[in-house]
Amino acid sequence: MATSTESPAGPTVDREVRDDPENITPPTDDLSDDERALLVDNLRYELDGRWRATRDMAREKFAGRSDLLPDPSLTLDQARARMLEEMRELGGSGFSAAGFASEHGGTGDVGASITAIEMLGYADLSLMVKAGVQWGLFGGAIENLGTARHHDRYVTDTINLDLLGCFAMTETGHGSNVQALETTATYDPDTREFVIHSPTPSARKDYIGGAAQHATVAAVFAQLITGGPGEEPTGRGVHCFVVPIRDAEGNDLPGVTTSDCGYKGGLAGVDNGRIVFDNVRIPAENLLNRYADVEADGTYDSPIENPNRRFFTMLGTLIRGRVSVAATAGAAGRKALALAARYGSIRRQFEAPDDEDNEIVVMDYLGHQRKLLPLIAKSYAIMFAQNELTEELHEVQSMAPDDSDAGRQRELESAAAGLKAYATWHASHSINVSREACGGAGYLDENQLSIIRGDIDVFTTFEGDNTVLTQLVAKEVLSAYADDVQGLSAGGWVKFIASMARDVVVEKTAVRQVVQTLLEGSDEDTEKSNLTDRGTQIRLFRNREDHLVRTCAQRLRRATDDDNDPFEVFNRAQDHLLKVGRVRTERIVLEAFVQAIEDCDSRSAAELLGKICDLFVYSALEDDMAWFLMHRHVSVERAKAVRRGVNELCQELRPHLRTIVDAFGIPEELMVAPMLQNG
Amino acid sequence: MATSTESPAGPTVDREVRDDPENITPPTDDLSDDERALLVDNLRYELDGRWRATRDMAREKFAGRSDLLPDPSLTLDQARARMLEEMRELGGSGFSAAGFASEHGGTGDVGASITAIEMLGYADLSLMVKAGVQWGLFGGAIENLGTARHHDRYVTDTINLDLLGCFAMTETGHGSNVQALETTATYDPDTREFVIHSPTPSARKDYIGGAAQHATVAAVFAQLITGGPGEEPTGRGVHCFVVPIRDAEGNDLPGVTTSDCGYKGGLAGVDNGRIVFDNVRIPAENLLNRYADVEADGTYDSPIENPNRRFFTMLGTLIRGRVSVAATAGAAGRKALALAARYGSIRRQFEAPDDEDNEIVVMDYLGHQRKLLPLIAKSYAIMFAQNELTEELHEVQSMAPDDSDAGRQRELESAAAGLKAYATWHASHSINVSREACGGAGYLDENQLSIIRGDIDVFTTFEGDNTVLTQLVAKEVLSAYADDVQGLSAGGWVKFIASMARDVVVEKTAVRQVVQTLLEGSDEDTEKSNLTDRGTQIRLFRNREDHLVRTCAQRLRRATDDDNDPFEVFNRAQDHLLKVGRVRTERIVLEAFVQAIEDCDSRSAAELLGKICDLFVYSALEDDMAWFLMHRHVSVERAKAVRRGVNELCQELRPHLRTIVDAFGIPEELMVAPMLQNG
Repeated sequence: MATSTESPAGPTVDREVRDDPENITPPTDDLSDDERALLVDNLRYELDGRWRATRDMAREKFAGRSDLLPDPSLTLDQARARMLEEMRELGGSGFSAAGFASEHGGTGDVGASITAIEMLGYADLSLMVKAGVQWGLFGGAIENLGTARHHDRYVTDTINLDLLGCFAMTETGHGSNVQALETTATYDPDTREFVIHSPTPSARKDYIGGAAQHATVAAVFAQLITGGPGEEPTGRGVHCFVVPIRDAEGNDLPGVTTSDCGYKGGLAGVDNGRIVFDNVRIPAENLLNRYADVEADGTYDSPIENPNRRFFTMLGTLIRGRVSVAATAGAAGRKALALAARYGSIRRQFEAPDDEDNEIVVMDYLGHQRKLLPLIAKSYAIMFAQNELTEELHEVQSMAPDDSDAGRQRELESAAAGLKAYATWHASHSINVSREACGGAGYLDENQLSIIRGDIDVFTTFEGDNTVLTQLVAKEVLSAYADDVQGLSAGGWVKFIASMARDVVVEKTAVRQVVQTLLEGSDEDTEKSNLTDRGTQIRLFRNREDHLVRTCAQRLRRATDDDNDPFEVFNRAQDHLLKVGRVRTERIVLEAFVQAIEDCDSRSAAELLGKICDLFVYSALEDDMAWFLMHRHVSVERAKAVRRGVNELCQELRPHLRTIVDAFGIPEELMVAPMLQNG
Repeated sequence: MATSTESPAGPTVDREVRDDPENITPPTDDLSDDERALLVDNLRYELDGRWRATRDMAREKFAGRSDLLPDPSLTLDQARARMLEEMRELGGSGFSAAGFASEHGGTGDVGASITAIEMLGYADLSLMVKAGVQWGLFGGAIENLGTARHHDRYVTDTINLDLLGCFAMTETGHGSNVQALETTATYDPDTREFVIHSPTPSARKDYIGGAAQHATVAAVFAQLITGGPGEEPTGRGVHCFVVPIRDAEGNDLPGVTTSDCGYKGGLAGVDNGRIVFDNVRIPAENLLNRYADVEADGTYDSPIENPNRRFFTMLGTLIRGRVSVAATAGAAGRKALALAARYGSIRRQFEAPDDEDNEIVVMDYLGHQRKLLPLIAKSYAIMFAQNELTEELHEVQSMAPDDSDAGRQRELESAAAGLKAYATWHASHSINVSREACGGAGYLDENQLSIIRGDIDVFTTFEGDNTVLTQLVAKEVLSAYADDVQGLSAGGWVKFIASMARDVVVEKTAVRQVVQTLLEGSDEDTEKSNLTDRGTQIRLFRNREDHLVRTCAQRLRRATDDDNDPFEVFNRAQDHLLKVGRVRTERIVLEAFVQAIEDCDSRSAAELLGKICDLFVYSALEDDMAWFLMHRHVSVERAKAVRRGVNELCQELRPHLRTIVDAFGIPEELMVAPMLQNG
């Protein structure tokens, strides 16, 4: 699976062009058009990150394609048919093959595959989800859980859409706790088949994208039951099977009953459905057998002894979906904020005191700036963190199997879980605020925001419920990524924490060079240095994380000392735990922003990024100021300075607003909104 | 307009039944079914408030009527046609006539009209909006701005739906600043007509409910231009005119061009549209002339000299729409929270440590309780405040004209503005959280939450943008409801504040008896008394409000002392101002809750209400803890106690959750959701 990582990372913008003319450092609001365009280019170069060539490929594809935007007048059937057409059209152009190794028939560039899917989010989130299900989830299961026989048989057809798949993991009764799925896959040694069955109503596969109409085959997650000769057949945990569900005419195959989830809060183009299996027989080779296999006689065999570790290893290979969802939410949030920022810059309301004929542009009100600018700053921060996450995923999944590193994989999974929750909550909130900032105009589908709002809603709960994911981050940190804690019940996990050596709970993350340098250059007493000092900012975020991790561990341990019910101990600390997960991710996001500024070659762009980073930090501090005050990490005087600082930074950044949102590089063809003509 | 206020307020529940058996005081979680049902009844009695008979009338109407729930499979045309049918069906049954005085052909019960409209929100928000436009906004304009000739001609037909009207105030260019509307109504003395005209593209009437299809007549707000003999015709400010826009076949009348706003983020059953007027002539009598008239020769005449005061007096009579919107948002939020609470009480996920076969009900996780219970507590608080607001509106609008009290009217308008913003933001947030708390199931329209989410979104910006309304509250408080500040520009208003006597800025609201008593019984030093002490709770909210009002006034005055640009001064303080508006409303909401507890005759219900009130207070304090700490109104130790208190109250209220949401009295037929069967 190792591939060259050079080609997609090659810069597409001539580096010479990116040098600053002296006169635009520092950036001011009286830039010429050319200077502003250059500044936009330089910022976009940084935001685009390593797969900027993929982003440019997508931008070219979108040129003149306003017709890709969602059309609310379509019926459900029409919307779904259209998504399939658009996928076929785009499939040939780099959106489909990158996620598969070249020896399997792909082009072997994981990072490009995620970036391409993310870019679809600028056009239509239904298209992104539909493509993500086909090439990311279904294709990813084949690619990562299958072996040569599956790659040979399915990969090319999956890329070409000759085979339409779905990813049948979630059941009506189980979404977050997938280890407890109820669907069974019982091996029958006489026929060398697996029997796929839904034993209860809650075993029904539910919400499955593609299952209502288009998918002819499903990657089904089910409890494998098998035994070798003379052995009682026993449960081996959840495994994945390729199960044909429909014939070429779209009829359910014998034993398969599909149904339609019908109308949803958004994503009209995605045909979510349900599948019930009544003793459906599939050939033995349909087990995706990279991590476990069943011999002809029924003997179960896996290189990973521990069933929990085996399950989570399989799951871990599937995080591309989660990373793609986070990335796309970022794109959707940026688009909504850019639409609202542009509208706010032309919409006028209420008269200026000295100019009664000319009402004030609403973006010039502090209240409006405070609504949008901190969210835009946070979107910058998240995009840099997302780029790093994509890069790390690319590296880990491009490694030769021998070089694989379990610890690095676990950290990647934790970072992906944390950022997925952080980024999708931010996107959902940003889109709500953007709609509201555009008033009645924002509520009309013609201006896109209301559609994006409906589509994004489910991003906070699919591909991992955000609360569960945030908790996962905290649990991993508190147990220092210890083996064998995955799959423990809440109470079991508390018992594990209590048994740990007292001083290993605060994980010793490798500190990146730039952060180390900044920390060394800043005062340990955060109150003594300027709040715009980057080292001080990092220190505040790090101190908060350390404090919360340490006190949470103490609390869990003390409580078990007292012989309490471990589940009760866990539950009473759940708000504390969720906070650990959130602040850890926020610290990672900040450090990614800091790294991006460090890596930026353009002085004017770096300076503007610095201001945006300041606003991200100030507003993050403001949002959590009660905590900082309660735990005496910030003084009352500094707290007041933070509030003033947010106001000042909003006013400083206001003249650059158009530059800042243009740098997202959202194709103009996808920014269509009549309100931007009317004002 | 004065009516009997007795009949609708009569209790429908036998007071005897409401007495507590001794054994259910205090309420515990091992109540018998009968005891629980009694507790639900007693709580509902309090929540239903004075117009409980109207609520019961609506409940009877909804019996067996799950068909009233929105049907997402309908096309736009079908959904709109269906709304009209439903309105015709419900019109005869008390939803329509109450808002009109009996001498005009109504039944003369303002409070009942608002309560009835609110109840429609439990069924379908499109129906509520459609009905609200017809009977509340259009009908309200006729009723409140018109005179006998209009009442005689329009009221009965409006009630019966023989006349379908729309309310054409907002224009493409002006929503919040309605004093600056551009549509003109020029009097022509030769023909005794007004000429209605849209002089610019931004003068187009926009987002008007009913304008796309059904309305045949519009209440059009336009700048009146007229002059008496020998007088140059001049602008007299915004007035309202009855303008026919369609013939019986639905064709635009000459000079009128309507168009369709098309698909929206929700409210599919409401036909929002646009209207452009090209010199449309209407007879002189179509001016709604209660507050101003034009004589045959063009002479303008109004009992209110000051044009600003005249305009805001007219606007003030129209606040029923705003009050209805707030009330309905409350209903929608309660329904969403009740659905999520019920789902959370049957949905199980992840195993209990000692009971591997029985996963934990998600509502038993602290994290899930913290998501829903504080929002439910706040919904209680808001409902009590809403009931008081409706009652005050009823009283003020039922007064004989001679008894009218300008100060009371201004306070009512301010309270309505504040609560509309506070309640709709809360509803929107609650519905988002409720959807998310139900995961994938919450995203399916069959479970209603996603539809409610789409419908509610615009409530935060229609009938007054929430930010603008919140600011309005603050401006009124800071200027102590002074005459003549309405309509001032931001800068002009700052100059006014600076000119005020230094000690009148903190408005001396009449303190209600129960609050006075509680304050007197509590320690002035809030740190010294228990945080569950009701007087201390009120004191904290009052102190916060006083502090913010005082410091905001000082800040505005100091800034003008320095000869700064008044608009800049205003703008720099905007976040401070918005906070004044928000905390003032929150204090009013708390005091309404306290009053409701005081008035509750049932001991067990009062005790449970007390706990719910505590949770409302603790979580409101938690949400704003940074402020309380920064301004030293709360100590660090107490802040930590608040956080723990929220957790403890969630756990204490958890056993009563079903009781608490059942007490909303939402008809079971409207709580249909397949997820409540599946778990």
